[in-house]
Formats: sequence, structure tokens, C-alpha cells
Amino acid sequence: MTTRHARAVIPLQNEEMATMLFAATREVFTSMLGSEIQRLQEPLADHADTFDGVISLVGLAGAVIGNGELECAAEAACDLSSKLLMTEFSKVDEEVLDAVGEITNMIVGGFKNLLEPHVGRLQMSIPSVIWGKNIATRDSKAEVAVAVCCVFPGGELRLTIHLAAARN
Amino acid sequence: MTTRHARAVIPLQNEEMATMLFAATREVFTSMLGSEIQRLQEPLADHADTFDGVISLVGLAGAVIGNGELECAAEAACDLSSKLLMTEFSKVDEEVLDAVGEITNMIVGGFKNLLEPHVGRLQMSIPSVIWGKNIATRDSKAEVAVAVCCVFPGGELRLTIHLAAARN
Repeated sequence: MTTRHARAVIPLQNEEMATMLFAATREVFTSMLGSEIQRLQEPLADHADTFDGVISLVGLAGAVIGNGELECAAEAACDLSSKLLMTEFSKVDEEVLDAVGEITNMIVGGFKNLLEPHVGRLQMSIPSVIWGKNIATRDSKAEVAVAVCCVFPGGELRLTIHLAAARN
Repeated sequence: MTTRHARAVIPLQNEEMATMLFAATREVFTSMLGSEIQRLQEPLADHADTFDGVISLVGLAGAVIGNGELECAAEAACDLSSKLLMTEFSKVDEEVLDAVGEITNMIVGGFKNLLEPHVGRLQMSIPSVIWGKNIATRDSKAEVAVAVCCVFPGGELRLTIHLAAARN
């Protein structure tokens, strides 16, 4: 997926967008979660076709259309929520799902702000957070897919941006 | 969820929006799938907090923000795909997920066209289709949630629209 190339839709290289996506992620970690995070240059080796955990999605529409996606395991979701809400969470509940949605909203919002000078105005939809087992996802209408894998003290995160040309 | 009321965000009653959502669904069934579909006046009695199957999401942004969601079991997803692509599908694969995304796109697009005269212009993002087990979903930023449960010869469908006021 990360090989789908951006230039037909976006006047940026995929790696430029990946850098923006990680910058937006690190900003949320630093300012809102009080945590460091590092980018893994290679995709997570064990990122299988299906996984158990949490997927959070926020739609994008405007000059282009698409979405931003955060994926992580249950333990990482609990750790992120504990950092955001300064309360200990040991299992995924509604508060954890809402916290992951809020973090996704902030990361995708930061990315949107970095992307807009290059493509034009964008608007975000609302986050949908899905928790389950053996999850597989498909974003078949995406013309561009940029993924960034990260590691932080509480686990691993995978952020993905999907974009496509806006329909008139 | 279906009790969250629309009027703070949308100048329509929830039931008016549910009627639009079912009209958009029936139109896709009639014109694209060659099938009848009926609305169940009560939510599916066994709609538990978690389920096994397929969730397909399309973001909305513009005069309001939100998303449209289609949920169904694997068997219903296969039947829908068989109807759309006129090929038999007996298990959920990438073609089935893409077909469910396409059907969701058409239904949410039809709903969008019916809603726009009441709220103003809207744009759709791209569909994301998720398949898994024990799936739970959260859309905590939704101010309005309208759900319609339907039955067709291949199974049951649940359509949901979530909406919230657009941020500046």
C-alpha cells in the first residue's frame, strides 16, 4: 500500500507526506501525551493482513478526499488513554475508545494543517473507532496511501493516510 | 443511539432522516442489486454491543460533518456482492469488501443528495471497509445518530448516519 504514489493527486512525494504525518504524531505525543515516540523506517515486520486491536478513522474532504487511520493493539490503546486522561486503563472500554478517537482526531488534524498549504482547504469528519479481533481493512478507492509505523514506550502505532481526487 | 436528537444540528426530525436513509437504501437495492428490501420499524432485536461481520464507513463533511455506516454479517456481505457483481461469493474476500464499500458509497451518496437541500452542500470521503470478529464501534463526537435496520432476501443490514455541527 505504501507504494501507491502521490503525484497524480497531490503535489508531494509520499515520503514528504510520511514526514508530515510523523511530525503531526510527534507533536500530539509531546504536547498532549507527555511521551516520546520514534518512527520506524520500515513497516512493522509483523503487520499481518489481519490484527487484533483498535482502528480509528477520520474522514477528510475538500480539495482532496480520503481519511486518516490509526491502528494499535489493545495494550497500546490503554496506554495512550492513560497518558491522555491521566487515569490508569487496563482494558479497552468506551473511555479508551473515545480517547483513541480524540488522539486520532488531533493527529489527523495536525496532518491536515500541514497538507493544506499544498492542496487547498480540507475538512475533517468525525472519528469512528472500531475494536475487534481478526480485523482486516480495505480502502479500495484510495489513490494514495502513506503509512508510518511508530514505537513509543507503551507499544506500537501505525498511522495511515489515504487520499483520492475529489469528485466534482 | 437512535435517541440522540437531530434538531440542534439539522432542521429535520430523526424519523425524517431515517426515511431518507431507507429511501436511499431501497433505491440502490432496486436499481443496482435487483432486490427488494424492507425496513424493520424496530432495531434488530439481537443487535448486540459487538458483532461478527463487516462494517463499511464513509465520512461526510461540508455544511455538517459526520459519516454513514453499513453493518452486516459475512453471509449478507457475500450475498450483496453476488448481487452487485453477478458472481457467486461464498466467503468474504477483497472483492466482497470492495463491493460492500461500493454499495455503502452509493447508499450514503443517495442519502447525501436527499439531505443537502436541508443543510447545504456535503462532500463524501472514501469508503473504509472493516471485517472482523467481536467488533464494537464508537462515534462519540456524533451529535445526531439515526439508524435504520433492514431485511432483504440475503440477510439483514443496519445503516447508521452520524452527524455533528461543522467546526468553523
